[in-house]
Amino acid sequence: MGAPDPSRLSLNTATVRKQWKLAQILDGCARHGIRGVAPWRDQVQEFGLDQTARLAKTHGLTVTGLCRGGFFTGKNWLEDNRRAIAEAHVLGAQCLVLVVGGLLFESKNLVRAREVVRESLQEILPEARQAGVPLAIEPLHPMQAAERACINTLEQALDLCDALDPGGSRGAPALGVAVDAYHVWWDPKLEAQIQRAGSRILAYHICDWLVPTRDLLNDRGMMGDGVIDLPRIRCWVEAAGYAGFHEVEIFSELDWWRKNPDDVLATCKQRHRECS
Amino acid sequence: MGAPDPSRLSLNTATVRKQWKLAQILDGCARHGIRGVAPWRDQVQEFGLDQTARLAKTHGLTVTGLCRGGFFTGKNWLEDNRRAIAEAHVLGAQCLVLVVGGLLFESKNLVRAREVVRESLQEILPEARQAGVPLAIEPLHPMQAAERACINTLEQALDLCDALDPGGSRGAPALGVAVDAYHVWWDPKLEAQIQRAGSRILAYHICDWLVPTRDLLNDRGMMGDGVIDLPRIRCWVEAAGYAGFHEVEIFSELDWWRKNPDDVLATCKQRHRECS
Repeated sequence: MGAPDPSRLSLNTATVRKQWKLAQILDGCARHGIRGVAPWRDQVQEFGLDQTARLAKTHGLTVTGLCRGGFFTGKNWLEDNRRAIAEAHVLGAQCLVLVVGGLLFESKNLVRAREVVRESLQEILPEARQAGVPLAIEPLHPMQAAERACINTLEQALDLCDALDPGGSRGAPALGVAVDAYHVWWDPKLEAQIQRAGSRILAYHICDWLVPTRDLLNDRGMMGDGVIDLPRIRCWVEAAGYAGFHEVEIFSELDWWRKNPDDVLATCKQRHRECS
Repeated sequence: MGAPDPSRLSLNTATVRKQWKLAQILDGCARHGIRGVAPWRDQVQEFGLDQTARLAKTHGLTVTGLCRGGFFTGKNWLEDNRRAIAEAHVLGAQCLVLVVGGLLFESKNLVRAREVVRESLQEILPEARQAGVPLAIEPLHPMQAAERACINTLEQALDLCDALDPGGSRGAPALGVAVDAYHVWWDPKLEAQIQRAGSRILAYHICDWLVPTRDLLNDRGMMGDGVIDLPRIRCWVEAAGYAGFHEVEIFSELDWWRKNPDDVLATCKQRHRECS
């Protein structure tokens, strides 16, 4: 397994969101020679959509994704996803990442939640296609099935893609997947499903699974500090034809969110090169 | 969906292990009219194997499982599993529950860990068969893949069963599964895989998934306090032909391990009837 192309590093802005505003993050990426960025919508709204687009362009940054649309099982999902698609279009984002939502309000019916996600995707997909914004379903770790996403395996996400966007399997999909190593590394069918995904892979996210993990949401590790065999998964992703960015996304209440953000970015660069 | 048969309730002794010794737990089951019990081996060792078998018999308790064998990726697995099989035989346990083990020491190679589990199962299976002790692979939640079990879906477990014990799919399997609702409730293929499992289902475990979950290991909920649709899953399990016990297994550092154990058992009975 060869080392990853350093120019493929992208920074998900959540990684240093506690320390920096969005403009500082974009400047930081430029200063550290990081060529891709994936911002969160609340940060974009705070800084301004046009300002964000302009500053990213000034720095020559590729917007590898906009986080996030989805939450189809919650209120006002349609309006919110329309806005997200419009914002992704303005930013020229390579995809809109979808965290699809968990259980419906006061319901334990996971089967129904998954139907709602499917129906909502079907409704919003033509608008995304028209706007030229590919939608990337991100299967989340099963430990987040109740609260954040009831799509929990790559197989399940790809079954949806095949059903709703059958033409997309031959390239330029309107509906694809964001493969986040943190969410899928445990999956016994991972290699096979990555191979199946092929051109459906719209984004590849990395960080590490810490042992022990102290919190279900905000205790992700820096690449190399945990147990995920990241080089192996990257090879599978590359073998499937993916040649896009490797987006570092670390939620870390106890560790990386408390560090000097310049040090965090420098570490991301180093660990991307050495451990990913 | 009808209510569950109250006589099918079994108590996994971990549920009150912080409050009571094993003898007290067996007495407690008898006092509360709970007809099944699944002890842990460290508790059995402390009380004595023959004493445990005798007291369970005195109370007319069915030993619905012995916890646990497995940890094939650790040291001394062969000796330990031989002892576990012998103990399960003496106790007349309906199965030996296998927590198969996570990653190998200082390794990130999950693929290899899974091969080791398969090879170890293949080695130990003839001895279990000879002792008349069915082995129940328990797929654990993916959040425990690194540390406790690299078998993480029912499909993966059943693939192993079919490969290593092909005759068992027609009934009286030597190798089957323990279906624990807590570990598998999120699985998009759950209904189909339970149906496939059929007579491979050697045990059915229940508790609940709390929102939020504060700890990856010891924050399980009492039936009804979380989001798992337990009646639905029980119906799937019963439709697959399973007519055995429903074993309550709750690891709860912050809640149930701190309560009066008689109250815990009374609550288990009530919630089994009303919420399972």
